[in-house]
Amino acid sequence: MNTQKHFTLLKTCDNARAGELNTPHGKIPTPVFMPVGSQATVKTLTPEDVKSLGFNMILTNTYHLYLRPGVDVVKKLGGLHDFMGWGGAILTDSGGYQVFSLSPLCKITDEGVKFRSHIDGSEHFLTPELAVKYQEALGADVIMVLDECSAYGDAKEKIQKAMDRTHRWAKRCLKSHKTKNQALYAIVQGGMFPDLRKASAEYLTQLDFPGYAIGGLSVGEPKDVTFPLIEQTTALLPPAKPRYLMGVGAPEDLVEGVARGIDMFDCALPTRVARNGALYTRQGRVNIRRAIYSKIDKPIDPSCDCYTCRTFSAAYLNHLFRAEELLALRLATNHNLRFLNNLMKDIRSAIMDGTFDRFAKSFLKTYQTTNEQTRVAQKGKWLKGRK
Amino acid sequence: MNTQKHFTLLKTCDNARAGELNTPHGKIPTPVFMPVGSQATVKTLTPEDVKSLGFNMILTNTYHLYLRPGVDVVKKLGGLHDFMGWGGAILTDSGGYQVFSLSPLCKITDEGVKFRSHIDGSEHFLTPELAVKYQEALGADVIMVLDECSAYGDAKEKIQKAMDRTHRWAKRCLKSHKTKNQALYAIVQGGMFPDLRKASAEYLTQLDFPGYAIGGLSVGEPKDVTFPLIEQTTALLPPAKPRYLMGVGAPEDLVEGVARGIDMFDCALPTRVARNGALYTRQGRVNIRRAIYSKIDKPIDPSCDCYTCRTFSAAYLNHLFRAEELLALRLATNHNLRFLNNLMKDIRSAIMDGTFDRFAKSFLKTYQTTNEQTRVAQKGKWLKGRK
Repeated sequence: MNTQKHFTLLKTCDNARAGELNTPHGKIPTPVFMPVGSQATVKTLTPEDVKSLGFNMILTNTYHLYLRPGVDVVKKLGGLHDFMGWGGAILTDSGGYQVFSLSPLCKITDEGVKFRSHIDGSEHFLTPELAVKYQEALGADVIMVLDECSAYGDAKEKIQKAMDRTHRWAKRCLKSHKTKNQALYAIVQGGMFPDLRKASAEYLTQLDFPGYAIGGLSVGEPKDVTFPLIEQTTALLPPAKPRYLMGVGAPEDLVEGVARGIDMFDCALPTRVARNGALYTRQGRVNIRRAIYSKIDKPIDPSCDCYTCRTFSAAYLNHLFRAEELLALRLATNHNLRFLNNLMKDIRSAIMDGTFDRFAKSFLKTYQTTNEQTRVAQKGKWLKGRK
Repeated sequence: MNTQKHFTLLKTCDNARAGELNTPHGKIPTPVFMPVGSQATVKTLTPEDVKSLGFNMILTNTYHLYLRPGVDVVKKLGGLHDFMGWGGAILTDSGGYQVFSLSPLCKITDEGVKFRSHIDGSEHFLTPELAVKYQEALGADVIMVLDECSAYGDAKEKIQKAMDRTHRWAKRCLKSHKTKNQALYAIVQGGMFPDLRKASAEYLTQLDFPGYAIGGLSVGEPKDVTFPLIEQTTALLPPAKPRYLMGVGAPEDLVEGVARGIDMFDCALPTRVARNGALYTRQGRVNIRRAIYSKIDKPIDPSCDCYTCRTFSAAYLNHLFRAEELLALRLATNHNLRFLNNLMKDIRSAIMDGTFDRFAKSFLKTYQTTNEQTRVAQKGKWLKGRK
């Protein structure tokens, strides 16, 4: 893997960076938000929709696809791109996070992790080598090392142990990685402890991966803990390599992440909240189910260029949500993803123009952050998974 | 209403007819199948999708829209077409069938029908005059009289009483109908009794409606009862007026209906079974959830030109259904509706060419009919509604 070719840093603006990922499925301008399609589908949307929303790269999940329909099935059907009809780039998560958060039982040894399927309870064993092998078979453009995920609130000693194992596993992943056209990223761990994050970033940097992810953040901790940790970690990562902040995608967090040197994001939140009727506007999130929208004959965001806003009134969306119509979920997903794509484009333009700082301040001043109940729910689920 | 203008009969082929409806929202070639969008949305699809599938006319439901979001709301938002973003023609059912089948309680007098909302239990009163008024406010191109629906298995005397009331109501609907650009259709009732059907057709014909529907069929009775009744009824209806068979839409029934002189159909079945994974092919219905499809790297119907078949393998669809992904519902709906649109086009071409009889025989020979469990379910629901 020629790591120089995988990423080009084009411009910086303080810590914010504009660049370009070079993948077998096209060049991806960064900073980039990747919609989540865990089960080889971005919920409610066709690949054609996702493309027309402006996205060139999505995320799918090895854990989910390994369990259903099976890695071998996807491979025989021509790999992930052919299977799901997506011509853009794909990043597969290794499944580490899902094993720890979804499996009703998981047992970790140095060799790997034994877990049960959340679908049928069947027992499985995943090692760093198998995680790489499965991702090579799926055929994504960017693949991830297997990591051991800690839970927010775990003792430092426990987190350090998990981090050390993540490091040993990263080395094994790198060693077993055979394909030339897939970029294998490492994952920096270390919980909420700056010294552990520093140790993790330093250890993984010397292994020379083509890209670095930051894992284990946005798992329930307050944001005044998250943001300094991101900033400290990116400062220790090689500038020539892309930095990927896993599982973060609320609009304000994208701006804050870019301001701290992040190039790539993924998150199920924007599409999940859409299906609950929470729609993004530059003024903040609105709940389309509220009665005040039932008679509004204007789009939810008159400045938005998405199909939903160009075609339907807030009143019609309100009706679809209240009537529990399936189209509601699709139109809302369409809107939120277009919002994020437009936001990332604006962010990138501002970086290229050298005005990112002004843009970020203006956006964060206007955008009303909401009580992120989804995060709390996520945390609850996460802790439930830790038996 | 100039009834000559509303429908033009272009060609007959034995009893089968090809014609054209003239509506304020375009000319509609007949025979036509109208997708059902009860709540002002064809489930899972955008109006753009419905149009690109080839449809120019859909059905929505007065009962549903009266209860939610309310007729006044839709009217203030510019009427049904603007509200749902649909530029084609719309037929609204009066809500008679839904009052009888969905309301937990309904009480009929000559004046009208008192019923409870299936949503919140609130009490409502619907009269023939109100049914017309609501449909005029919604703004559909074709509107329906309020009828009293009988249940399959009711005694003849009861059915005759309901039919007589339906006739009195039809007269009142006609009298109260004010708008010039909406065609009001009558509904022939009379249960499974040929003499009642005859009486109903004759009575309503002399009132000179621009179109005639046949109601109360396909409600659980065997098909060897349905088909002769359709044939006997259409024989009594004026050839210059369109005939609409309500609630019928299985592929084989469309062919059989056209063969007996029907011009218009609607049915929720094709989209409902799609959401259960039952997909139409010219060989019959297949269940995409079956394990045999999990590894098939070909479309479900290689001869089909729909987006689903052009883009995805049967294996991918099987995966989406098994993984309970929302996209599955949309792709299956897309396929079944395209199948029906293609079928209606082929039927019409065959009529125009004078070869419908051959087409129908060939289609019915190849198409394997299935055990229509949906009908039985429908019947159960229907009877449950009759308290």
